[in-house]
Amino acid sequence: MMKALVLEKKGELSIRDVEVDRTLAADDVRIRIHTVGVCGSDVHYFTHGRIGPFVVDAPMVLGHEASGTIVECGSNVRTLKIGDRVCMEPGVPNLNSRASKLGVYNVDPDVVFWATPPVDGCLMPEVTHPAAFTYRLPETVSFEEGALMEPFAIGMQSAAKAKIAPGDTAVVTGAGPIGMMVALAALAGGCARVFVTDMKQEKLDIIGQYPAVETINIAKQDPVQVIADATDGWGADIVFEASGAEKAIASMTDLVRPAGCIVLVGMPVEPVKVDIVAIQAKEARVETVFRYANMYDRAINLVASGKVDLKPLISRTYEFSQSIDAFNRAVEAHDSDVKIQIRMPEPAV
Amino acid sequence: MMKALVLEKKGELSIRDVEVDRTLAADDVRIRIHTVGVCGSDVHYFTHGRIGPFVVDAPMVLGHEASGTIVECGSNVRTLKIGDRVCMEPGVPNLNSRASKLGVYNVDPDVVFWATPPVDGCLMPEVTHPAAFTYRLPETVSFEEGALMEPFAIGMQSAAKAKIAPGDTAVVTGAGPIGMMVALAALAGGCARVFVTDMKQEKLDIIGQYPAVETINIAKQDPVQVIADATDGWGADIVFEASGAEKAIASMTDLVRPAGCIVLVGMPVEPVKVDIVAIQAKEARVETVFRYANMYDRAINLVASGKVDLKPLISRTYEFSQSIDAFNRAVEAHDSDVKIQIRMPEPAV
Amino acid sequence: MMKALVLEKKGELSIRDVEVDRTLAADDVRIRIHTVGVCGSDVHYFTHGRIGPFVVDAPMVLGHEASGTIVECGSNVRTLKIGDRVCMEPGVPNLNSRASKLGVYNVDPDVVFWATPPVDGCLMPEVTHPAAFTYRLPETVSFEEGALMEPFAIGMQSAAKAKIAPGDTAVVTGAGPIGMMVALAALAGGCARVFVTDMKQEKLDIIGQYPAVETINIAKQDPVQVIADATDGWGADIVFEASGAEKAIASMTDLVRPAGCIVLVGMPVEPVKVDIVAIQAKEARVETVFRYANMYDRAINLVASGKVDLKPLISRTYEFSQSIDAFNRAVEAHDSDVKIQIRMPEPAV
Amino acid sequence: MMKALVLEKKGELSIRDVEVDRTLAADDVRIRIHTVGVCGSDVHYFTHGRIGPFVVDAPMVLGHEASGTIVECGSNVRTLKIGDRVCMEPGVPNLNSRASKLGVYNVDPDVVFWATPPVDGCLMPEVTHPAAFTYRLPETVSFEEGALMEPFAIGMQSAAKAKIAPGDTAVVTGAGPIGMMVALAALAGGCARVFVTDMKQEKLDIIGQYPAVETINIAKQDPVQVIADATDGWGADIVFEASGAEKAIASMTDLVRPAGCIVLVGMPVEPVKVDIVAIQAKEARVETVFRYANMYDRAINLVASGKVDLKPLISRTYEFSQSIDAFNRAVEAHDSDVKIQIRMPEPAV
Repeated sequence: MMKALVLEKKGELSIRDVEVDRTLAADDVRIRIHTVGVCGSDVHYFTHGRIGPFVVDAPMVLGHEASGTIVECGSNVRTLKIGDRVCMEPGVPNLNSRASKLGVYNVDPDVVFWATPPVDGCLMPEVTHPAAFTYRLPETVSFEEGALMEPFAIGMQSAAKAKIAPGDTAVVTGAGPIGMMVALAALAGGCARVFVTDMKQEKLDIIGQYPAVETINIAKQDPVQVIADATDGWGADIVFEASGAEKAIASMTDLVRPAGCIVLVGMPVEPVKVDIVAIQAKEARVETVFRYANMYDRAINLVASGKVDLKPLISRTYEFSQSIDAFNRAVEAHDSDVKIQIRMPEPAV
Repeated sequence: MMKALVLEKKGELSIRDVEVDRTLAADDVRIRIHTVGVCGSDVHYFTHGRIGPFVVDAPMVLGHEASGTIVECGSNVRTLKIGDRVCMEPGVPNLNSRASKLGVYNVDPDVVFWATPPVDGCLMPEVTHPAAFTYRLPETVSFEEGALMEPFAIGMQSAAKAKIAPGDTAVVTGAGPIGMMVALAALAGGCARVFVTDMKQEKLDIIGQYPAVETINIAKQDPVQVIADATDGWGADIVFEASGAEKAIASMTDLVRPAGCIVLVGMPVEPVKVDIVAIQAKEARVETVFRYANMYDRAINLVASGKVDLKPLISRTYEFSQSIDAFNRAVEAHDSDVKIQIRMPEPAV
Repeated sequence: MMKALVLEKKGELSIRDVEVDRTLAADDVRIRIHTVGVCGSDVHYFTHGRIGPFVVDAPMVLGHEASGTIVECGSNVRTLKIGDRVCMEPGVPNLNSRASKLGVYNVDPDVVFWATPPVDGCLMPEVTHPAAFTYRLPETVSFEEGALMEPFAIGMQSAAKAKIAPGDTAVVTGAGPIGMMVALAALAGGCARVFVTDMKQEKLDIIGQYPAVETINIAKQDPVQVIADATDGWGADIVFEASGAEKAIASMTDLVRPAGCIVLVGMPVEPVKVDIVAIQAKEARVETVFRYANMYDRAINLVASGKVDLKPLISRTYEFSQSIDAFNRAVEAHDSDVKIQIRMPEPAV
Repeated sequence: MMKALVLEKKGELSIRDVEVDRTLAADDVRIRIHTVGVCGSDVHYFTHGRIGPFVVDAPMVLGHEASGTIVECGSNVRTLKIGDRVCMEPGVPNLNSRASKLGVYNVDPDVVFWATPPVDGCLMPEVTHPAAFTYRLPETVSFEEGALMEPFAIGMQSAAKAKIAPGDTAVVTGAGPIGMMVALAALAGGCARVFVTDMKQEKLDIIGQYPAVETINIAKQDPVQVIADATDGWGADIVFEASGAEKAIASMTDLVRPAGCIVLVGMPVEPVKVDIVAIQAKEARVETVFRYANMYDRAINLVASGKVDLKPLISRTYEFSQSIDAFNRAVEAHDSDVKIQIRMPEPAV
């Protein structure tokens, strides 16, 4: 038995004992959790009790952005050892599946993902996890940064899908946490400059602090004009749509250059009108993103080498005992909050 | 002065003398036209007087799918000689443009395209054209096949954009002339099998004659189920959307496999609702097609080597003197007509 | 205990009883073997007792190109059932490895491969194998063709690595069994025409029977000149080097077009002189091939749809009781032999 | 007539009047030269009188790395205007060629390149050049940096060919000027970290000043071991071979990871032994680099946005009147010299 943050049902959180299986499979490791980030999906399950087809109809432990320390290794594990500081991919595919064999394990229909009903998350003192989806953190990467690898991996997947050519110009529409992650991944991934659009100045100010990021407040400026001016009328090589907003989706084709790339990261709440002929007239390539595959190690390397600094995106940190407060704060959706994290208690020695 | 097929204005065609410039630029060739195909866009200018922003507000010679014989070469031309049998790309870009330098000259905003107002087409005895966009036909390729290279090049562009891996399974939604061209290009371009959907059985019967093409009459069968059965539930590697129909567009994500590719070839008449989250859940790549670039030589090679047989798609051939009849027939849109061609008169010796 | 073809040591084969483990892991299937092809590597272990670092220092069952019928399924297996006709990938990676997660399981250093010391091959009545590397054969694909999927998969990997654009022109240097497989995969995979070079006319005559294949006997013709003539002096889009011969390797850069692709399939017995500047001057991309990954299903689809006919490449078939004769024949290396196969005995009912 | 730096013949330089054509073609611009870099090829023509097939058998103006100011525009030029600060691509292809249409104009056999016999270079007060190959410098990019775009473009081409995935680990073998350019382009182009090898500590110290660059002095350390340690034994995602040295070429396959990429930038003086089987066993992709195409604009963007700082690579600057001294210094090949530049005189007003 150990204390976990449990979503009892829509709108009701509690910190309480849950039962834990102590067996450890040969390819798994046991991890003592250090830090867990609060994700929009965690908050959405809390406030709405469901995301699309995934319905919370039994109590579920929340949390899927985590780092910690290896405390036990299964008998086959050679790549990790007790004491290693690590972070974990929350989704685990069937390695025998067609998708996994192709290297796109993220689209394996049988992926089991933390804190997606009915699977428990990791807001608890210890978890077991496949070693293959557990990644060592170098000394230069903190637990707090480690717990940011999950959302950063989405940015990385977006950047990888774009197939950035060195020196590309990109636009990111939407300065939410994912938009910011995308902007940083795009810059580290080869863009010369990234323009980020939003109508919330406070959000733009946060991401605008990074070198080579330029911001466009769409309440005051026409992003199409700004990009045209910045590119001699040619357009951006890549548009990362990270808002899910119909208006932003409509503007994509005016922002992108001929034969450019559009990456759809944001998820509109329902089908939207799309001007297909406008995309064709640019002969744009449109890539889509669903989580990530094979991104954690390279995400960690970028943070470790200093090319990406995620620390300014950690807005607030709560002790586990205050984790319900953390969620209530997240529900308030302050423009100044990018990422809220929860720190698990040190184990009694 | 020479006789040409002139669209005087919406709904009015005439065969009459037009004036012709006899100068020949250094990089150009003069071609005596042999065969010209009738394209849907020619017909649309005839019946509607416009396509989108392109309005027929002055008489214009129609025709852009042509083959013929070189009768004169400009002073710089080294790659062609008098007497060469050739076909021509109807769109000519500015070679100094950013798009041209990148190899995507089809998306150069300054492309000048035959029979697109105010530019005259090629339904006339002679034209001049840049040698760089004029391609020699091997002996094994007839003038009639040569005049089919233009629509086939769209199929080729679609197949090239898909980045077919050898042995892929594809679906083509829509068995119009372009859908058929896409199906043949996809097969020749590496697919193991191509499923073509339509609700017109007569069209399906034409394309269904080709080996490795399977047809799905959507009036009788559920294409999603057929593809699921044919692929162990995995889905098609590639979906070529060649209908422009909202219903077909809606079905794309149910037809494609995880991490598969959707190629948008058909042009919906107006913006359509698209379920972006459904595309993201498959993490599909979406490619779009705008004409073609660098496809003519490879299209010719496929016909020359016998890998692609376009002849069954030539439904009717008219003499130039009957070319108005040819257009009237095309307006009737018979299901059994794929491509109607017009043969220019032999020159008086 | 069951009868197997055992390489006792270099130069000594016997058909004798071997012990077999009857346990079946949850993700595995048991297969009754029907047909096994004789591969050059089998023959080389027989004649030389080693291939590079792999030394036969204990008796080993030979054979790795096999088809058969499922006779038992492990408890997790959902994709196959008893009675399914199948063929098998002989190499099994560690699915938890970095290479496997990336989709390139063929380069996992821990691959276990049939008939590679000390691992037994499949020239025996029954084997167990992971379901994930066992592929169902459609009704239109025979066991004999199924047993050819292994060498054909190397051709497919080569074609896939080339990233053929529809209508490419290719050259294959070397008309051995692998060169032929490459030629067929390249044609099916999108090439308009494939030129195959060799100095053995008998081999060229076999592959030259296929449509769109042209042959060049390098004892009589200069391949560089033939390709220049066939491509207006531009060169082949792709050169597949399938001979391993230093002279062929030296000619690659004269055969390939600017910005073309060279695929190195043949394995020279020792390091060879390469003119790197000549490759750079063409700015060619050079791809290399090591076995295959994710090719079996698409290889089967190409044979099933009729796009590829492998049957002309089956030169001789031996009963299992004559399998030592089969190997002795293979050692003789007749120019007219492409593939020799061995048929396992029908089980006593 | 204007003063130019003329290579009279092997070993003999003079500053003297040359005749200049004052006509300006419609697509060309006239540029007053500001800064010209001294390249290894300039020096090699000076010391050896030839590079491969290119022989200096008549006096030739040297220099091809240049920046300047537009002083006159041809009648068609719309993208540039008088007074624009610019830099120029020294190679001009035939835009009608097959290579140019494909977007790979650098491999057009008809490229005309500054200071490649018999074509004059740009170490003179004024040149005319096609506007399409002349690039505007933003205010944040100096003339000195502008004159560095030519060698930096080679680094960019190398990085682009590698198809860097965000967060890759790269090795650059050789810390000469091109190796340094490659390292900076690879970092800016998406690598998390770049290891540079050389045996000259002074060179390593220069490139080692950049963040995320690590150096390996191969006189003291085994690079294979360093890379293995840094990558958990997996190897580098990309190896850029920038030395042309046989020993470095031999080590490539030990440095690169399975399914990784090798980019051949350095040009060995003669053919070298290559272990093809070792490359195949890794199934590495090998890319080659020949100058660059479509890289100037993106190179400029990276410098303009501050992602790349080329200024530390400018070692010495000479006035034009001392340009022979500049060449003599370059011949001495000091380890501490990366790039030597020559400043043209201000025009008399």
